[in-house]
Amino acid sequence: MPTNNYPTTVYIGAQDMIRLVQRKGLSACIAGVAERIERDFLRWNDFDKSARLACHSQDGVIELMPIADTVEFAFKYVNGHPGNHRHGLPTVMAFGVLADVATGAPRLLSELTLTTAIRTAATSALVARKLARSDSRSMALIGNGAQSEFQALAFRDLVGIREVRLFDTDSAASAKLAANLVGQGLEVRICASTAEAVLGADIVTTVTADKTNATILTPEMMEPGMHINAVGGDCPGKTELHRGVLEMAAVFVEFEPQSRIEGDVQQMSADFAVTEFWQVLAGHRPGRTDAAQITVFDSVGFALEDYAALTFMRDTAAELGIGDIIELVPQAADPKNLFGLLCANPSQPLVAHARQEDLVA
Amino acid sequence: MPTNNYPTTVYIGAQDMIRLVQRKGLSACIAGVAERIERDFLRWNDFDKSARLACHSQDGVIELMPIADTVEFAFKYVNGHPGNHRHGLPTVMAFGVLADVATGAPRLLSELTLTTAIRTAATSALVARKLARSDSRSMALIGNGAQSEFQALAFRDLVGIREVRLFDTDSAASAKLAANLVGQGLEVRICASTAEAVLGADIVTTVTADKTNATILTPEMMEPGMHINAVGGDCPGKTELHRGVLEMAAVFVEFEPQSRIEGDVQQMSADFAVTEFWQVLAGHRPGRTDAAQITVFDSVGFALEDYAALTFMRDTAAELGIGDIIELVPQAADPKNLFGLLCANPSQPLVAHARQEDLVA
Repeated sequence: MPTNNYPTTVYIGAQDMIRLVQRKGLSACIAGVAERIERDFLRWNDFDKSARLACHSQDGVIELMPIADTVEFAFKYVNGHPGNHRHGLPTVMAFGVLADVATGAPRLLSELTLTTAIRTAATSALVARKLARSDSRSMALIGNGAQSEFQALAFRDLVGIREVRLFDTDSAASAKLAANLVGQGLEVRICASTAEAVLGADIVTTVTADKTNATILTPEMMEPGMHINAVGGDCPGKTELHRGVLEMAAVFVEFEPQSRIEGDVQQMSADFAVTEFWQVLAGHRPGRTDAAQITVFDSVGFALEDYAALTFMRDTAAELGIGDIIELVPQAADPKNLFGLLCANPSQPLVAHARQEDLVA
Repeated sequence: MPTNNYPTTVYIGAQDMIRLVQRKGLSACIAGVAERIERDFLRWNDFDKSARLACHSQDGVIELMPIADTVEFAFKYVNGHPGNHRHGLPTVMAFGVLADVATGAPRLLSELTLTTAIRTAATSALVARKLARSDSRSMALIGNGAQSEFQALAFRDLVGIREVRLFDTDSAASAKLAANLVGQGLEVRICASTAEAVLGADIVTTVTADKTNATILTPEMMEPGMHINAVGGDCPGKTELHRGVLEMAAVFVEFEPQSRIEGDVQQMSADFAVTEFWQVLAGHRPGRTDAAQITVFDSVGFALEDYAALTFMRDTAAELGIGDIIELVPQAADPKNLFGLLCANPSQPLVAHARQEDLVA
């Protein structure tokens, strides 16, 4: 146990996060994260925002996504490697950190692979609740990989979706999704094509992984009043929508400077009109203006959503006594005497592997 | 233990890093890191380099420093908060990650507070070995905080320094440094001012923490043939050298685009001549041209040095069987079935807290 006021770092590993979500409940986590995202979007101007730093390679991308207000700094490490399933690895893996702005001390280190799926679904549903027609009940779900269950359940809980139509070029992925949704109160139909899944749907969610300029959705698939939740176009050269879809719709984004580089709107000229979603939440800009309008949420994922998710997971872990205390930063009696740590006898870790529940108790 | 080929993440916490440096020996660590830095500087063009991302606040700065070659991605989280000692915290705290570029999987998470002191000293000494006069034996050490012992020992080992003259505005810091250097084969003298410490020194190292445009060194203190190792000026608005010192010297930097923003050369116009040190190492550009020339290494700290240090610490930890295996990323049998992890019974961590020595054994 720390013997002074030295700030500790809580570590939530993957197994602890699974336990946390199981004990809190996935629906409660999605709703809780959505609530935090809404709250933080409404204080948009409190944050020091920047487009994420992306390192592109042949097989994928690795990104660092920092953000801060005057109290907390957060960042996420996240990759996107569409071919990872060939190595038995997830397409998207992530972890993140919360730190004190006043001192720079890291206070939370958390897995964010599972959490990214939750926060992405929470963001999508939060936006659709505001932009989709309020009588929306059916959703096409194109791309049935790791994130798809979370999207389906978030839209069930927050938007009132009752029917999902699935399509994936990998039919095993659709079968897996359908199996996971048994008993979840959703009518599930596996479709033979994107066009079949989209036909008559109120909402269309695209969450595909391919790193190409794909045209998953084309203008002829569009119907009046649809809301498009385009999640998978999130890198330069990685898009999902035909530009004609964007031209016929009202387009909403998270953080415009980042979306212009990474979103489906990368296909459009710099003066193509987009609306930052927080402006709709805050009442500064209109959302959907009529029942026949087509709305598009061109989602790329923004650091503020991870900040919101990290604070929710931190607070929930503390409430449930989940997580380890780790010594990520050495604790010296005299902070100017880092060297002195090397002169001490090799000892057992001071606080390594302490459980957060021990601190709570 | 992992039951498949899932890549594991090694965690080296602060206590493990202390053990590692104690067992390997500080001199061997400094020399080993310097060797890696030299090797990696010589393959400069293999790296995808960018200036670090800095988040400035009233009390300090938090930075993310990414870099990658085609095989490994590395980043460091590091803060700089000059007032932290008032909270009993180090000015600089850091940790970092190595990941596979091909898949994005994080493979090493390591403390870097201690390691940053080692890599900064290793870089300084590597540069001085090339730029200082080869008969340099005395060094002034201005700023006697957490990094100062590492600088003194690196210059003893790699440059042949035999005498150090100390000055700090906090006399307790100088007393601490002098005490830590007892029995280290260095003649140590505590001085009453910067001018007294600098007078007649072959090398001058400035490693102060103040976040201001300070003028620790002024032109009248300069003597022919001096080498200046300026470590503490590393942020916009945080400099240590009077611009006159730069005007009378040949100035060397790490990565020019970052140094123009953060280094002491931020005071100079954009066309002020600087040489990237790797060019000297590679024989593309001259270093010191005569014994009377004044040379300045305007060091800010560059991500490549952290990459080199991370790979050294990773390999040394593996050799010594130090470090934990953590599950930072969830291991799903089917990577497209992230949701399926939530349906499993809550279980003990698969591999959490396994020691790296168990894997070696």
